[in-house]
Amino acid sequence: MNTVDIAAVISAAEPEMQVRIFRLLGKNSSAEVFSYLDSDTQETVINSITNVEVHNLVEDMFIDDAVDFLEEVPANVVTRVLAQTSRETREIINRFLSYPEDSAGSIMTVEMAAFQKETSVDNAIAELRKTANDKESIETIYITDSERHLVGVVTLRKLIVSPPDTLLEDIMVNEDQVISVATHDDREAVAQIVRKYDLLSVPVVDTENRLVGIITIDDIIDVIQEENTEDFEKMALLLPSEDDYLKTGVLKLTKNRIVWLLILMISATFTGQIITGFEDKLQMIAGLTACIPMLMDTGGNAGNQVSTLIIRGLALGTVRPRDYLRVLWKEIRVAVLCGIILSVVNFARMAAIRAITGSMTPTPVILVVCISMIFAVIIAKCIGCTLPIIAKLIGLDPALMAGPMITTIVDALTLLIYFGIASLFLQSGILVPA
Amino acid sequence: MNTVDIAAVISAAEPEMQVRIFRLLGKNSSAEVFSYLDSDTQETVINSITNVEVHNLVEDMFIDDAVDFLEEVPANVVTRVLAQTSRETREIINRFLSYPEDSAGSIMTVEMAAFQKETSVDNAIAELRKTANDKESIETIYITDSERHLVGVVTLRKLIVSPPDTLLEDIMVNEDQVISVATHDDREAVAQIVRKYDLLSVPVVDTENRLVGIITIDDIIDVIQEENTEDFEKMALLLPSEDDYLKTGVLKLTKNRIVWLLILMISATFTGQIITGFEDKLQMIAGLTACIPMLMDTGGNAGNQVSTLIIRGLALGTVRPRDYLRVLWKEIRVAVLCGIILSVVNFARMAAIRAITGSMTPTPVILVVCISMIFAVIIAKCIGCTLPIIAKLIGLDPALMAGPMITTIVDALTLLIYFGIASLFLQSGILVPA
Repeated sequence: MNTVDIAAVISAAEPEMQVRIFRLLGKNSSAEVFSYLDSDTQETVINSITNVEVHNLVEDMFIDDAVDFLEEVPANVVTRVLAQTSRETREIINRFLSYPEDSAGSIMTVEMAAFQKETSVDNAIAELRKTANDKESIETIYITDSERHLVGVVTLRKLIVSPPDTLLEDIMVNEDQVISVATHDDREAVAQIVRKYDLLSVPVVDTENRLVGIITIDDIIDVIQEENTEDFEKMALLLPSEDDYLKTGVLKLTKNRIVWLLILMISATFTGQIITGFEDKLQMIAGLTACIPMLMDTGGNAGNQVSTLIIRGLALGTVRPRDYLRVLWKEIRVAVLCGIILSVVNFARMAAIRAITGSMTPTPVILVVCISMIFAVIIAKCIGCTLPIIAKLIGLDPALMAGPMITTIVDALTLLIYFGIASLFLQSGILVPA
Repeated sequence: MNTVDIAAVISAAEPEMQVRIFRLLGKNSSAEVFSYLDSDTQETVINSITNVEVHNLVEDMFIDDAVDFLEEVPANVVTRVLAQTSRETREIINRFLSYPEDSAGSIMTVEMAAFQKETSVDNAIAELRKTANDKESIETIYITDSERHLVGVVTLRKLIVSPPDTLLEDIMVNEDQVISVATHDDREAVAQIVRKYDLLSVPVVDTENRLVGIITIDDIIDVIQEENTEDFEKMALLLPSEDDYLKTGVLKLTKNRIVWLLILMISATFTGQIITGFEDKLQMIAGLTACIPMLMDTGGNAGNQVSTLIIRGLALGTVRPRDYLRVLWKEIRVAVLCGIILSVVNFARMAAIRAITGSMTPTPVILVVCISMIFAVIIAKCIGCTLPIIAKLIGLDPALMAGPMITTIVDALTLLIYFGIASLFLQSGILVPA
């Protein structure tokens, strides 16, 4: 069975069985299986094995997996684990735990294949043969000078096709062509670099260009999925949470949701005041109130469509703030087209309802609704493309400017347009109170 | 300069410069650079080079890159390119072009390292030294029997640490532990497998378990990003589009958006009819109409939050349809908590507005709004978790059951609850018409 599947079986077992199955694993695979367990199971296992077993386990794990594990378990477990760890490993782990969350440093590993540039190809291969099993990735080999400055890279495939007595510095890709990242770079930026250049791993250097670790592509895939999940959550105005939904408690879920629900509910005071200000006229003209939800929803949906496209474009780098005027011009044209189509269909819809139900909605009311619709869609599309770009420019996350936020703003503007046009029709005598 | 950066420079240049820069590239890098150009630039280049140059270019490209390129350019370009291609390559390309879009076959490549199981380690290494440059990935080596059935895999690192005279079948991971996919598997499922098992490449087999290609992780990352983008688009009720936003024309953008806008606008007929049916009572009780947008938006936002979490959970596999009852029970509790908090804050908000503006909103109206809010949030949360799971069960994409769709349904239910409670208060005499 594959280690990932073994880990899944253990995670799904009853607590007392988890440790028993884990102990059946050979020394070689136990560290790898452990790194795939969920953090609750990791805690159960650690609490049930001896100090010597803890020591062996942690020393056998890759540093990045050990750090991931320690970041998730309670402090008393961390203390016990670190106490059973060799001084050298403990120092590395502590350094890693000190890197900011979401930084390149927090997801890198130190188990890379690195050689000094004067090493010969056959010496490098001989060394790799001895140590390959302790390396997380040997597909790319990093070349340093005597002071650990990163000076080049050689792929494993290049290494095995090169003459044995060549020096690594003669076959390496030089420093100026090597893509590297810094320990404090944002992990999302690192993921974009790995994706852009189709890398299997990327070297991490400190401020003096000394090689301190590598980030491998399997961790990058997890970063990409987590960042996407975070964007989905922010767009639905949830506070981001790293826990699986099913494992999150009711109080935590409530906390993650209530903040924005409250803010938007209080913001709706504006729409309430707008309606209150127009209430006497609404009471005079039958049919005007009934169209409020349809107009607001259509505006909100139209704004939501464009804000989603722009937020995604900004995240993937296909739209940049300096494209704003092009975006706005495009959106205005799309909005005019969409608005006219919606408006024509709506006229037919309202006329049909009048015919079927025999209701008294006068034609001027239908006209007010249709004209308001066109303007509402134009305003919604403009707001929908403008707010994410403004957010990006002032350093906020554009994902916050998604559906719910756009809807709240567009609602108020839609009502102002609707009542404004109705007032004009009233003043000019086209619309006559019942 | 890195090939990816060279491609970016060429894509950004004026058309006449693009071909000139491209011709300056050495034979070795031109095929790789070409595969990173955007499809417009690829077309420009192909239209400006000789038939012999086309031939060399296509033969030097990896098959998956050539297929990607041919899928994007007009038919006359495809015809010319295929005419300049050797018969063997042309047959492979045609087979690849016939795989369904979004299938494993459509993203695989045939340039993998594969050996028969009786090959010795030193023969395999010798062969790799000769052919490594033509392989897209040699980090994992695939082992077949004499009839090309996949029987195992060996990693390159395992290969170089093994004694030279060992046979591959003695060091390979056996078939029953090898993860493989079929040509017609959905590429999203393939991406989940690669991510789950931390693979650098995955073998693709036909219905008789014969090895036909591999899919490499760099292509998987692109699949993950595209699938995420598709989910974002569906959740905003846009028809999915593969083109970059800035390159898409106004008509195409309008077409992608208008369908759902129309459907939802027409669905709003229900909310309109509900309000019309209650219009005479709305006119009697001041303050009731003004709270409609706030109630609808809060319900929509509450439903949107949970539907986003469930849609994402279903996509990542952390929530499954059989978890439905657990999800529902969790959501009901979260909804009661959120509803009570919102309701209390809303009472304070409305009382404050009454005090400040001196408006006449009677306390019973505020009570109707607050009680409706609790029920609206509960209904919204239940709908928000139920619809994506139903969609999944009946084979629809859960992403369609996101914000806009939930809002349209929740709006109608919120109004029914609101008017229902108001009617009860009226009948029982708590609420008295002005």
